[in-house]
Amino acid sequence: MSILIVGSLAFDDIETPFGRSENTLGGSSTYIALSASYFTEKVQMVGVVGSDFGDEHFELLHSKNIDTKGVEKVESGKTFRWAGRYHYDMNTRDTLDTQLNVFADFDPHVPAQYRNAEFVCLGNIDPELQLKVLDQMNKPKLVILDTMNFWIESKPEELKKTLKHVDIFILNDSEARLLSGDPNLVKSARIIREMGPKSLIIKKGEHGALLFTEKGIFIAPAFPLESIYDPTGAGDTFAGGFIGHLARCESINEAELRRAVLYGSAMASFCVEKFGTEKIAALDLLEIEDRYQSFRELSRIDE
Amino acid sequence: MSILIVGSLAFDDIETPFGRSENTLGGSSTYIALSASYFTEKVQMVGVVGSDFGDEHFELLHSKNIDTKGVEKVESGKTFRWAGRYHYDMNTRDTLDTQLNVFADFDPHVPAQYRNAEFVCLGNIDPELQLKVLDQMNKPKLVILDTMNFWIESKPEELKKTLKHVDIFILNDSEARLLSGDPNLVKSARIIREMGPKSLIIKKGEHGALLFTEKGIFIAPAFPLESIYDPTGAGDTFAGGFIGHLARCESINEAELRRAVLYGSAMASFCVEKFGTEKIAALDLLEIEDRYQSFRELSRIDE
Repeated sequence: MSILIVGSLAFDDIETPFGRSENTLGGSSTYIALSASYFTEKVQMVGVVGSDFGDEHFELLHSKNIDTKGVEKVESGKTFRWAGRYHYDMNTRDTLDTQLNVFADFDPHVPAQYRNAEFVCLGNIDPELQLKVLDQMNKPKLVILDTMNFWIESKPEELKKTLKHVDIFILNDSEARLLSGDPNLVKSARIIREMGPKSLIIKKGEHGALLFTEKGIFIAPAFPLESIYDPTGAGDTFAGGFIGHLARCESINEAELRRAVLYGSAMASFCVEKFGTEKIAALDLLEIEDRYQSFRELSRIDE
Repeated sequence: MSILIVGSLAFDDIETPFGRSENTLGGSSTYIALSASYFTEKVQMVGVVGSDFGDEHFELLHSKNIDTKGVEKVESGKTFRWAGRYHYDMNTRDTLDTQLNVFADFDPHVPAQYRNAEFVCLGNIDPELQLKVLDQMNKPKLVILDTMNFWIESKPEELKKTLKHVDIFILNDSEARLLSGDPNLVKSARIIREMGPKSLIIKKGEHGALLFTEKGIFIAPAFPLESIYDPTGAGDTFAGGFIGHLARCESINEAELRRAVLYGSAMASFCVEKFGTEKIAALDLLEIEDRYQSFRELSRIDE
């Protein structure tokens, strides 16, 4: 099954208590695509980059069989740049600089050969652009959408309009409380699912993730790591592993949704072990399966 | 198997965003004993109360087959009193008043008929008193200890001395960081287990609990409740369900420890649904088993 991924491609300057990394390849769609590439052969990206996005970056993506024909290169501009600094607890960060550059005029165009993709993963961009992408697709089997507090606050109505076309909505706990207006996550989930998405994933960082479906609630732990070097992209990497696993399933049911949450969590746990995309660009299937099994063990109760 | 429980008996004034409750029966050993009473017939309490601790309070405990012969009644004094107010998020609280009363001179004396108890649960009291209790026991099979930040800060050396005699240590995440001096919970657990306890449970409130043993890590979810009325005693109720389940097991192994964490979590999830001990004083075995099974479902992945 093919997955269409739409979102940002970026260069990041990242500072954490453990070090710093400059000009690191990043962006939501980069993390999603790299993560999903371990699960399926057909990953297609739509995005925009500037003249500073070199052949080596495209080659990295191509080495993972990621199709970048939908990534427009604007020679007259520069790629989106973000700079941030994480605090000691790694849960909070300050944005030091944001330069939208070519991303400011991003108008996603889905190439004809991508329009039959069965799976669509809409990374965190303007909800109006997310809807614009969906309008170009031929009845995808499953649509997953990520967002952030910025869009919930600045474009709530546009976001709600887009959500009507979404199957699975991914956001974090504070975003869920913001969108629903309720501090209780169980109530929040019910309110948000009434906006359209059949299923909802609420990410809680080091406290794991909650999956709400019509069948009930699933709680996935986060991997108890001794060291977290860089949380950048962990949420996008989760989404990539999640949709990647679903794309290889014969049918999507409650059991596969739960497994997909664990695969997403496993991928995210790799992501934070090194700076930027370094770790998730260099995994093999065996270590992914090992990490998945370790996740299983974390909450296993023998019958 | 019999369980000896040592800790406070108290009357609490509790305020939460949902209401208030005055003169509510409370105290660490009350919650632990009530919770454990559903799992085993022999629950024995050691504690101290004042003249205001009436027959109706003893009768409530006796109705659950809890043996209170070790609870000394000091007619010249009053029972320990605590007053607190929970904030809107229910995770933080202010102590409005503490009156130690007869608890200030508590010098635990274990009656002769309690000294062969196989299980000992030391509620949150001065670590020197906890050790004094253990000195009176005849080789218990399992010793569980709870503490709080107050003792970690004021009596760290005494606590560490007592921990050498403890099998399973229960504390919360901020207490674990405080005691270990490390912000990472995995590292904290390793440091604390080197102080003596073979196993460690780190409670994370609404984010569940972590069990660290020589076999590895188990992560238990918290029950996703729509409404939490009063978190008072949830940690003690957890400890009671945890030790209660272990006391009914033929042998204690990794699988039973994991189940015990879920039973403790199930009991704690009941506790917060009403004020004080109201809910956990009026449960039946069927609803406990139902809640346990619901917990199992929360993290179940079919093979």
